[in-house]
Amino acid sequence: MEKLEMIYEGKAKQIYRTDDENLVIIHYKDDATAGNGEKRGTIENKGVLNNKISNMIYRYLMKHGIQTHLVEELNDRDSLCTKVDIVPLEVIVRNLVAGSAAARYKMEEGTKVLTPIMEICWKDDNLGDPLINDYHAIAFGLATREELDEIYAQTLKINDLMLKMWDEMGIQLVDFKIEFGRTKEGQILLADEISPDTCRLWDKHTGEKLDKDRFRRDMGNVEEAYKEIFSRLEKKED
Amino acid sequence: MEKLEMIYEGKAKQIYRTDDENLVIIHYKDDATAGNGEKRGTIENKGVLNNKISNMIYRYLMKHGIQTHLVEELNDRDSLCTKVDIVPLEVIVRNLVAGSAAARYKMEEGTKVLTPIMEICWKDDNLGDPLINDYHAIAFGLATREELDEIYAQTLKINDLMLKMWDEMGIQLVDFKIEFGRTKEGQILLADEISPDTCRLWDKHTGEKLDKDRFRRDMGNVEEAYKEIFSRLEKKED
Ligand SMILES: Nc1ncnc2c1ncn2[C@@H]1O[C@H](COP(=O)(O)OP(=O)(O)OP(=O)(O)O)[C@@H](O)[C@H]1O
Ligand SMILES: Nc1ncnc2c1ncn2[C@@H]1O[C@H](COP(=O)(O)OP(=O)(O)OP(=O)(O)O)[C@@H](O)[C@H]1O
Ligand SMILES: [Mg+2]
Ligand SMILES: [Mg+2]
Repeated sequence: MEKLEMIYEGKAKQIYRTDDENLVIIHYKDDATAGNGEKRGTIENKGVLNNKISNMIYRYLMKHGIQTHLVEELNDRDSLCTKVDIVPLEVIVRNLVAGSAAARYKMEEGTKVLTPIMEICWKDDNLGDPLINDYHAIAFGLATREELDEIYAQTLKINDLMLKMWDEMGIQLVDFKIEFGRTKEGQILLADEISPDTCRLWDKHTGEKLDKDRFRRDMGNVEEAYKEIFSRLEKKED
Repeated sequence: MEKLEMIYEGKAKQIYRTDDENLVIIHYKDDATAGNGEKRGTIENKGVLNNKISNMIYRYLMKHGIQTHLVEELNDRDSLCTKVDIVPLEVIVRNLVAGSAAARYKMEEGTKVLTPIMEICWKDDNLGDPLINDYHAIAFGLATREELDEIYAQTLKINDLMLKMWDEMGIQLVDFKIEFGRTKEGQILLADEISPDTCRLWDKHTGEKLDKDRFRRDMGNVEEAYKEIFSRLEKKED
């Protein structure tokens, strides 16, 4: 599959057209940003690690009945994926309260809650990706009721599968963000990436953070954390 | 019914115990605040006007099948109400986008949307009453799924009834905030007030604002606007 012209450059990835109009090539960069693009830097080898990490997770989810955009890993930094029309929502699951939610609700990082929390944010850089609810999504024309139902149902399954998967690797899945797209046929499909950029992953025993918070909070050993996640996933896949 | 000691003093009202433990007396003050208490002032006669306005609206809603906390108007500023345990949610309905939502989503005041938007905010001054969703409400123990279902069902009915009522008085109901409480028997009951303090009310023909935005935005003629609302409601009741 040939890489044709770039059709989108985001903060962490580039998207390329291919000679099949239903497929794109996603190229993973080392660039890292935080705080809605305010903090910028690079994490050595992040592109390679996240490409492989995301694909390992997607293969696990696909084995357990979740359909995803992943078609094939092409090389260290490139993956062939089904082209979708991204639903402009960031779908967040919080098993523990941390990060922006901990700040917003003045709760301690790691606060336990009665049930997992699902949030949707309007994917709009100009607005700062604000939290919205289903009424906003529908009233603003971002998604239909049926699409939201499908998104929530898939998200709950993904959370259940991932909680188990990470737990078996000695990791507590604190929260994560996913994105969905619409295929040409109107199907809702898990797209974008799942990686230490998009999850909070705490070592189950030591509590050590093994995710992008190390970058956001200048904690050091960022690449090492991503590598640790990669090697635990690799061991699991064997 | 005798007014015993004050059990709560809010920004706009005082709540008094009575000799019946299931009833409270709500006393309406002239005090007005905006921006989460940052702006403070008084609106002459607001207490009298809001007491009577809220009761007129509640009588209309009760005539149309909505149960409310209102028992009896005692005098110009005092009403006897069923005592409830307030659900810590501000329930907002937006028929047009205005106010904080217009700012948050960078939309013009009065923007039309595909369907009315219902929002719930966590009633917590220390957090600034942040927008939350149903998962937060349940996970944080603020309300149960069943209570939320009941609250949304009642709120939709209240919006339908109020849209019609205000329209017949030549007023466009832009948005409003309501609160619900739990009775001793665990029933969900409309409580607190509905008034120009808690609604955005625009004259249907001139677009003139007849609500607390005149105070928030220093537009003048605040008391006149509240009086205008009162007199249109009075005409309707006759
Ligand atoms: N299968 C897919 N088809 C089309 N677009 C996709 C697919 N998967 C992911 N995308 C989109 O490609 C882009 C990937 O770039 P990146 O993650 O770097 O963006 P970003 O900087 O996070 O910005 P944003 O997500 O706000 O566009 C995202 O916009 C993502 O939504
Ligand atoms: N029937 C009722 N029984 C018990 N409490 C009530 C009832 N109706 C309203 N309340 C509560 O009484 C208080 C009225 O005071 P006011 O509206 O001035 O409060 P406030 O300044 O808006 O602050 P807050 O609403 O955040 O407490 C509110 O806390 C309201 O929730
Ligand atoms: Mg992205
Ligand atoms: Mg109040």
